[in-house]
Amino acid sequence: MSSRKVKIFVAEFLIFCLCLKLSFGGIIDNVVEQYAFDESEENVCNLPDTLVKEIAGYQNTVNRIIKEIVNGKFKGKTWDSLATLTDTFGPRMTCTESLENAIDYVKENMKRSGLENVHTENVTAPWWIRGYENADMVKPWKRNLPILGLGSSIGTPRGGIIADVIAVENFDEFKTIPEDQVKGKIVLFVPPWEGYEKTVVYRSEAASVAARKGAVGALIRSITPFSINSPHTGHQNYASDVKRIPVAALTVEDAQMMLRMYRRGQTITVNLEMSDRNNGNCVTRNTIGELEGTKYKNTSVVVVSGHLDSWDVGVGAMDDGGGAMISWKAVEFLKAMNLRPKRTIRAILWTSEEQGLIGAQNYLEDHKKNEKEEFNFFMESDIGTFEPRGLDFSGNADGACILKEVLKLMTSLNATEFSQPTDGGPDISWWTTRGYPGASLMNKNEKYFWYHHSNGDRMEVEDKDTLDKCTALWASAAYVISDLSVNFPRSLDSN
Amino acid sequence: MSSRKVKIFVAEFLIFCLCLKLSFGGIIDNVVEQYAFDESEENVCNLPDTLVKEIAGYQNTVNRIIKEIVNGKFKGKTWDSLATLTDTFGPRMTCTESLENAIDYVKENMKRSGLENVHTENVTAPWWIRGYENADMVKPWKRNLPILGLGSSIGTPRGGIIADVIAVENFDEFKTIPEDQVKGKIVLFVPPWEGYEKTVVYRSEAASVAARKGAVGALIRSITPFSINSPHTGHQNYASDVKRIPVAALTVEDAQMMLRMYRRGQTITVNLEMSDRNNGNCVTRNTIGELEGTKYKNTSVVVVSGHLDSWDVGVGAMDDGGGAMISWKAVEFLKAMNLRPKRTIRAILWTSEEQGLIGAQNYLEDHKKNEKEEFNFFMESDIGTFEPRGLDFSGNADGACILKEVLKLMTSLNATEFSQPTDGGPDISWWTTRGYPGASLMNKNEKYFWYHHSNGDRMEVEDKDTLDKCTALWASAAYVISDLSVNFPRSLDSN
Repeated sequence: MSSRKVKIFVAEFLIFCLCLKLSFGGIIDNVVEQYAFDESEENVCNLPDTLVKEIAGYQNTVNRIIKEIVNGKFKGKTWDSLATLTDTFGPRMTCTESLENAIDYVKENMKRSGLENVHTENVTAPWWIRGYENADMVKPWKRNLPILGLGSSIGTPRGGIIADVIAVENFDEFKTIPEDQVKGKIVLFVPPWEGYEKTVVYRSEAASVAARKGAVGALIRSITPFSINSPHTGHQNYASDVKRIPVAALTVEDAQMMLRMYRRGQTITVNLEMSDRNNGNCVTRNTIGELEGTKYKNTSVVVVSGHLDSWDVGVGAMDDGGGAMISWKAVEFLKAMNLRPKRTIRAILWTSEEQGLIGAQNYLEDHKKNEKEEFNFFMESDIGTFEPRGLDFSGNADGACILKEVLKLMTSLNATEFSQPTDGGPDISWWTTRGYPGASLMNKNEKYFWYHHSNGDRMEVEDKDTLDKCTALWASAAYVISDLSVNFPRSLDSN
Repeated sequence: MSSRKVKIFVAEFLIFCLCLKLSFGGIIDNVVEQYAFDESEENVCNLPDTLVKEIAGYQNTVNRIIKEIVNGKFKGKTWDSLATLTDTFGPRMTCTESLENAIDYVKENMKRSGLENVHTENVTAPWWIRGYENADMVKPWKRNLPILGLGSSIGTPRGGIIADVIAVENFDEFKTIPEDQVKGKIVLFVPPWEGYEKTVVYRSEAASVAARKGAVGALIRSITPFSINSPHTGHQNYASDVKRIPVAALTVEDAQMMLRMYRRGQTITVNLEMSDRNNGNCVTRNTIGELEGTKYKNTSVVVVSGHLDSWDVGVGAMDDGGGAMISWKAVEFLKAMNLRPKRTIRAILWTSEEQGLIGAQNYLEDHKKNEKEEFNFFMESDIGTFEPRGLDFSGNADGACILKEVLKLMTSLNATEFSQPTDGGPDISWWTTRGYPGASLMNKNEKYFWYHHSNGDRMEVEDKDTLDKCTALWASAAYVISDLSVNFPRSLDSN
């Protein structure tokens, strides 16, 4: 999950409200079959009985899907495939050979595992290179500080910069420090964890805020609620009006220690050296495979997705190997069970999500011309594949009513929860923010940010049985939505 | 907590059983006042009513101690002092300037804080130096592996050793591998976490077990139940009959990944370079300060203790800064409250615990001549200063009955639990294994081994309010035991 997501979530919520308002009464753009829904009042569902019964009629099929994946011949397969992927390619950073090799591997194995129309689609993505990175506290005593440069950060001169540190808890405190005291210093922001969306602004903006007052470098407390001295990377953005300065994340422990020392009046000097650099663009690829629909093929597609790229630390097992893998395996297992729905289910493993939702943005541009006909529903898993709880929904009131009925089928997984608006789905927000319906995997991801963008994002985060349940929920929901007699309602702008 | 502790626990338990047997009926060596206890049957207490009443009579005093430390003028002081200590000196490894500077600092501040007879006592300790350490997996793909060499490990030749890896889960699996397959290889042991005592044998013995079959290096999965890609160090021992080979801990994640890869039949090659070395001995110091008793001074002393040294990773806030600090502060706060008991309470901050309980062993040797007269009771906190639960006891049945009465006074701390035999107290095991009574701080330390001997052992592990409660329990128990009308019963060998 990238820093852009936060902004996108805010935008999404506003646009979503706007869409709801615009579409009050349900502007249902139903390409395939025009079904006359009753006008739904908020939180009151008036779906036609026939549709409610139709959805309930999938219970046996859903039970079979769940049984085969959780306790049958697919038991443990999702975890095994993810372990093989991550053990073979390690982390999959945009513009690296590892990612492109992993894309080739997934493409070949999607074919072998029976997916249809397997192919990749090119994406032009920003190429940021993490170089040599080192930070030493040299005063008041010598300590090597584990760091991770933030994505898009520039480097330092060779040999690094040596400067005294100003440590503050937050932007408000920083405002109180006169500019002449900041000039030539390294500014360290040590915000307490107050949830990702609130805290991540320090990752996004630290460099720009510090540079505006003449700082020569910026450091942040890693954006995480928990640490075993583990730095967390992630994307940052330079404001257009500032001189670019290098920026990196310290561990929670080191950042908090230095804040305490600073407040005791001690002079802290740091030698920060980074050879990170932005290297233009590279070409990478989205990876796509399908289970073709019986009735519709290239229209009214249900997308299941996660991103295959990761940061260059850990192995991206959680962010977002798990989401990518359940999307691939959901399609593979449905095919192996000879369950072919009316609509095509398209697994898309996005590329370059971590650099700013780039793969999905490219995909939108390439498919925008006929998107109204092409797409029916967007699913994305990118907030963990821990114990599944249900689905987070983006869409209108009629859509919510349908998804709630679909979720009633998931009782045996104990994953019937519904929430709206979604708090996941960064890549699909390119569509959901414009009124297309979508869902994200709601899961017990309370510890997600413990591992997020750190070397702790490894296979140990993923549990074998839990991953089976995620795949089962994913396959079941995708199957039912793609097989319904009606298209999923949506609320598109007139644009 | 060092690897020796495990052996000592086993030895302790056996000796304890022997002592109980020898002393059935209570061989009470009561130097100061001979008090005739009734013979206590196991789990049945027959303490004299007068003694039970005497102990209950301390409730008001204990309430005052708790109130002042948890909510009064000492609130937050223990954590603040620990933060200052660790922020100033960092980790405090045996035979380093940091440890000796920290010892000087504690000595000076013990004096300033009102402790009496403040001094240090010299200790000769083994000097192990962690040099440059690096491990790279070079096949099947390149990955830097975070490692920590194990205490007493030798180094590799310059440039390191490059060898294929044999990965096994445990010693039994290793037995099945023929010697000619092991020769020239690096052996990786990946035991699942089954509790510290059971799992730590892989840290202690991996090098020797691997070397016996001709391996050139040994690696282990870090001895921890949880990891954010964090290696954990600790002491190891070479058997006398083997060629010494370098040995280091990998992270859980890397070890488990390599085991999976090995089991898939992949060839794994590692380049391991370590310039670690054993450098003879150095002189370090135990740090001692007292609250002198009103009735007895150098006899019948109650010892409160923790170790001031740490490993060279993290800052040793948990292992054992917390235990050392509550021992110092318990005495300081009692003095500041003008609470002076009949017996002397002696805070001892042991040195070189991590190298094999060396500081305490030296102290025993130096004080052995008159130890029967000198010591009454030994307290040690070295298994965490998380939420206190009560006390773990080592001693005889009469002692158990007394300590249970003392613990009844701790209701307001919700710390009245009693357990026997103790599972803590490595340093004081030099005495408790020979029949001296002792107690360890029982606390909610379920996550202790998440941080243990890793870079995660930082101030963030310690909670301000919780540390107050630990100090309050420690001060209260020490005060009551040191002020009782009777000496604490013990069961000494005839030796």
